[in-house]
Amino acid sequence: MNARQPLFAFAVLLAACAAAADEGMWTYDNPPTAQLQERYRFTPAAEWLDHLRLASVRLNDGGSGSFVSPEGLVLTNHHVALGQLQKVSSEQKDYVADGFYAKSRSDELTCPDLEMNVLQSMEDVTARVFAAADPKAPEKEQNEKRKAETARIEGESAQKTGLRSDVVELYHGGEYWLYRYKRYTDVRLVFAPEVQAAFYGGDPDNFTYPRFDLDMALFRVYEDGKPLRPKHWLRWSEAGVKDGDLVFVSGHPGRTQRLQTLAQLKFDRDHFLPIRLKLLKLRLKALREYAARGPEQARRAQELIYGYENSLKALAGALEGLSAKLLDAKAKSEAEFKSLLASRAETAAYAASFDRIAAAQKAFASRAKEYVLRTRPSGSRLLGLAQTIVRWVSEAEKPNEKRYEEFRDSALDSLRFEAFSPAPVYADLEETMLSLYLRTALAEFGPEQAFVKAALNGRSPEEAAAQAVRGTKLFEPDFRRRLVEGGTRAVQACDDPLIELARRTDSSYRELRKWYEDDIQSVLTTEGGRIAKARFAAYGRSVYPDATFTLRLSYGKVAGYEQGTTEVPYKTTFYGLFERSASFDGARPFDLPRRFADARERLELATPLNFVTTNDIIGGNSGSPVVDREGLLVGVVFDGNIQSLILDYVYTEEQARAVAVHSGGMLHALRKVYGMDALADELAGR
Amino acid sequence: MNARQPLFAFAVLLAACAAAADEGMWTYDNPPTAQLQERYRFTPAAEWLDHLRLASVRLNDGGSGSFVSPEGLVLTNHHVALGQLQKVSSEQKDYVADGFYAKSRSDELTCPDLEMNVLQSMEDVTARVFAAADPKAPEKEQNEKRKAETARIEGESAQKTGLRSDVVELYHGGEYWLYRYKRYTDVRLVFAPEVQAAFYGGDPDNFTYPRFDLDMALFRVYEDGKPLRPKHWLRWSEAGVKDGDLVFVSGHPGRTQRLQTLAQLKFDRDHFLPIRLKLLKLRLKALREYAARGPEQARRAQELIYGYENSLKALAGALEGLSAKLLDAKAKSEAEFKSLLASRAETAAYAASFDRIAAAQKAFASRAKEYVLRTRPSGSRLLGLAQTIVRWVSEAEKPNEKRYEEFRDSALDSLRFEAFSPAPVYADLEETMLSLYLRTALAEFGPEQAFVKAALNGRSPEEAAAQAVRGTKLFEPDFRRRLVEGGTRAVQACDDPLIELARRTDSSYRELRKWYEDDIQSVLTTEGGRIAKARFAAYGRSVYPDATFTLRLSYGKVAGYEQGTTEVPYKTTFYGLFERSASFDGARPFDLPRRFADARERLELATPLNFVTTNDIIGGNSGSPVVDREGLLVGVVFDGNIQSLILDYVYTEEQARAVAVHSGGMLHALRKVYGMDALADELAGR
Repeated sequence: MNARQPLFAFAVLLAACAAAADEGMWTYDNPPTAQLQERYRFTPAAEWLDHLRLASVRLNDGGSGSFVSPEGLVLTNHHVALGQLQKVSSEQKDYVADGFYAKSRSDELTCPDLEMNVLQSMEDVTARVFAAADPKAPEKEQNEKRKAETARIEGESAQKTGLRSDVVELYHGGEYWLYRYKRYTDVRLVFAPEVQAAFYGGDPDNFTYPRFDLDMALFRVYEDGKPLRPKHWLRWSEAGVKDGDLVFVSGHPGRTQRLQTLAQLKFDRDHFLPIRLKLLKLRLKALREYAARGPEQARRAQELIYGYENSLKALAGALEGLSAKLLDAKAKSEAEFKSLLASRAETAAYAASFDRIAAAQKAFASRAKEYVLRTRPSGSRLLGLAQTIVRWVSEAEKPNEKRYEEFRDSALDSLRFEAFSPAPVYADLEETMLSLYLRTALAEFGPEQAFVKAALNGRSPEEAAAQAVRGTKLFEPDFRRRLVEGGTRAVQACDDPLIELARRTDSSYRELRKWYEDDIQSVLTTEGGRIAKARFAAYGRSVYPDATFTLRLSYGKVAGYEQGTTEVPYKTTFYGLFERSASFDGARPFDLPRRFADARERLELATPLNFVTTNDIIGGNSGSPVVDREGLLVGVVFDGNIQSLILDYVYTEEQARAVAVHSGGMLHALRKVYGMDALADELAGR
Repeated sequence: MNARQPLFAFAVLLAACAAAADEGMWTYDNPPTAQLQERYRFTPAAEWLDHLRLASVRLNDGGSGSFVSPEGLVLTNHHVALGQLQKVSSEQKDYVADGFYAKSRSDELTCPDLEMNVLQSMEDVTARVFAAADPKAPEKEQNEKRKAETARIEGESAQKTGLRSDVVELYHGGEYWLYRYKRYTDVRLVFAPEVQAAFYGGDPDNFTYPRFDLDMALFRVYEDGKPLRPKHWLRWSEAGVKDGDLVFVSGHPGRTQRLQTLAQLKFDRDHFLPIRLKLLKLRLKALREYAARGPEQARRAQELIYGYENSLKALAGALEGLSAKLLDAKAKSEAEFKSLLASRAETAAYAASFDRIAAAQKAFASRAKEYVLRTRPSGSRLLGLAQTIVRWVSEAEKPNEKRYEEFRDSALDSLRFEAFSPAPVYADLEETMLSLYLRTALAEFGPEQAFVKAALNGRSPEEAAAQAVRGTKLFEPDFRRRLVEGGTRAVQACDDPLIELARRTDSSYRELRKWYEDDIQSVLTTEGGRIAKARFAAYGRSVYPDATFTLRLSYGKVAGYEQGTTEVPYKTTFYGLFERSASFDGARPFDLPRRFADARERLELATPLNFVTTNDIIGGNSGSPVVDREGLLVGVVFDGNIQSLILDYVYTEEQARAVAVHSGGMLHALRKVYGMDALADELAGR
């Protein structure tokens, strides 16, 4: 306990009794065995950890999942599957609204572009990456050298093993690890409930608890045309959890900022989050107007609307979490850490790294809006494809080490899979989103700014978008493929109006990115690495790295909490779904899913539906399995409550909770609501 | 709307758009007809108002109720009936735990000391009361003159009409009204559910919503040994409310402080509330220790524990409500009101009243603790009886106009009814509470303080309490009656140890009360009256007086609210009761009432159970009828949500809600859970 206390006092910031918290998103090479033994008298065996890791799945749509049957079933959330559901739907058949129910193997529906990754091994390559750069060289040069070395490591590994090989930067530059993944791309949809059952309560109830959502979906992974028989898959617990049970979540949290400096948090508060919130609100407004045109438009826009609403609520909550109180605590703990560093000869020089990061963040602020607008998805799928293709063919001509990371050899298989996806693209929706994007850029930067000028080329945003979308052939996957295969020559010669737009705006993108990498990223990574080194010197490796959408293990317990003088229960039951619907007289978004209403008499209403745990999770963990001490699957994580939105910046277990669907509730619904007995039997191992 | 705006800006303080609020606890002589017409297109007819007033009942146990059948049934809350339930229970039969169910008229159980009052008429006697005192005389003299005149008015009225006649001070001395009540003292218990159904969720869920409480009880009023046939009673609506319905609450809110000055609110924050909270915590601790001695002790203490827990939560919430934000708003509105007064010649002098009140509150603070401890109930019923008897016989020798108000002729009938009640008194509980009271006084004031010295008389608190309780005959109602009838001679000669204790401490009580009335109350009432006069000059009579446990009408609508990004429904149903129990695995205090569990299959679970409205209520309103436009009974008020605890000081309808039991839910439970079909039919008018 004593050994861990200083660490947690730093990492936790706000927790009064730090060692008493179920904190951490731990890498599998460094599981929190001391804490588990101390708090729960549990020590996971190496085989237990390997089994859980190899049963854990990462989905390229941005979520997590797990193998849950010997014949390749993967459990994840409905909202993680939502992108694929949208892509396999059409005006004639809306699987989002109606759900999807494969009655037999032959009914299972191939997903257009869903890739799953399973982490096979982890190798510490920190020393090699650091050795590639002279620590006394300018930060820009160090950054380039590290990137090049990283590319070499990935390339060598991919060639040697045939596995997807990613070098992952942990601790903001403190460590580099080679993660090797097995890729699966023949993934078929087996089961998804109707969205009203999966996302009951809609946006109002999103990020809240008590909750009544069947937010689950099942895919099956195929290999060589046959169901995969994974060596590692999680056995299903029909009984599920009890109050107070120790549970684990194994998944892929996307991004946290807990080890970042005060200057970085203030940047998030003052620049990054406000800019993103502004863009999200504009896009949501445009999408809602588009959806109001008719039922087919509503169908086309629905997944985007769900996604943007979700981001809006999450980021608004995170911004609220970045309170004066939190920042004061951060300032205090950072000051303490800096004086600790200053007090030791071997780390005295590192305190200056905080100032260098602050200076870089200040410089970043001057172009933050431009950076966010140009490097994050534009809202237009076609524009993204055009930009990718233009950059890709150009990067491909460079040696592997010199390329943007996303075009390295090791990334190309996945990139091809996504870029040449046959998923439908809707012209009217594209035009809506592209013209909004151009209009926003014009409004934010004025007509003379390089990107705006090149993109509009004398036209209004609406004209430019209309001409580009109505004239482009990028709707066709084969057209994209031919362009990429034709290389720079084909792309240069192409008179497709969207490709032309992407070509015209490419140089300003490259200038912006170079500025960011040389002047900002190089400082953040180099100085972040120094701070990490100092932290390791002070606290050893008993700290976990911030989330990076790589596999992590978190532990916690099933537990309700106090709110507004009363108690919130650790679980909900099917009774509650009927209560919430009845209490609103079935008004949207609280209308009872029709299939549940029909199944009323068959249901055992006291069956658990959702539950909450103290596990440390964040966006990206959606779909993660929840397992008990025995490694049995007891639930699937699908959300955090509203009090958990602060977890971007600090862990707290007073009220913050992960919300999961209960394993018993899933089986009960499969059997009694959906009549999917064979599937339930496969899961239950019958 | 314009005419009302200045008023509401003053009264509401915090509401941004004041005129849009369902605010006010209106006297029946001054109903909010303009607001009702403007907001709800509804104008109550005089007959409508008379009918509702004459069907409304005040209970001397501190709550409200209403006639709900042509044969004298009165509906109120279980927690208002709780005192009587406790008094009719014994070690052999615990009606609190088990409920009470009269199968026939002959089973109806006479209550030992429940008095009900029905307001027959209201008469404005302001001019007469003011005329009795020279406004230029010292405040102390004015106060005495007003009191004497008040006593004369009450005496004349009682003699003339035979009705209970109270002069009520409204607007903190701005108006005086003669209220005449019909008294009913033969009241019999007809129905009360088990406490776990009435108070489901216990202290954690108290003052919260969503809620699932069958907090109802039914009494029957008898006159001349037969059920009363009231002219006015409320017809029962089996359908009950819909979302958005206009509804009225007619009841007796106890105490609000909205028209008080900033100095008075600060006194509450700094003195009154902290002192009361401290005493409540001490008493609760002692009661819980007492209750832990055994099941019979737990039974004896249960009603007191519920009551103290309730007060503790309410006052803690009120103290939290007295935030810096609220006080800042109060300071601002008070400054505006003062400059308005200063700007008019006829009110210029009144601004000084605020300063005089502030000075009086400052003086009050010096003895606030002593005042609270000695003038509020001590926790010992026997000590209260002894003190009452000692004061009573002495006051009775004075002319009516010179007595303490509570011993005026007009009050004596009710006083006798309560003081000579046969309700059980438990020696061990009395000793516990009396010794705590004496211990607290010793700890707070030291051994040399007049009351402490006289009460202890050289003994320890424990010895003094043991000798008093073990030696007293005050357990016997006849002994009390004989003492009172024997007058000062009998009381002076009495060697009962508790009477002796009360005698020894009487002079210090009288000194304290005289100081309060002469130095504090006289200023608060005289200056409060001036401020009220100034307010009437500025805003007319479009303001309502603070609550005084006299009959008021409030209007509002059935409405849910937003909380924590999501929506709270306007009603709950029986489903929710089963959900809350199941979600806690039936752990206390969320265990399902056994009768509900047994009735599971007979219940229509979607039946509404509770609902919330924007009506302006406060403690004392418990048991008030909720009626719709047609005057039909649609529910019974039993609580406010946690956000309503601020209503002591300011009305807000953003989240604050009154919580009521639904009329349809009550009938459904009577029929399906309790098998009380005849009673349900009587209510439903079948």
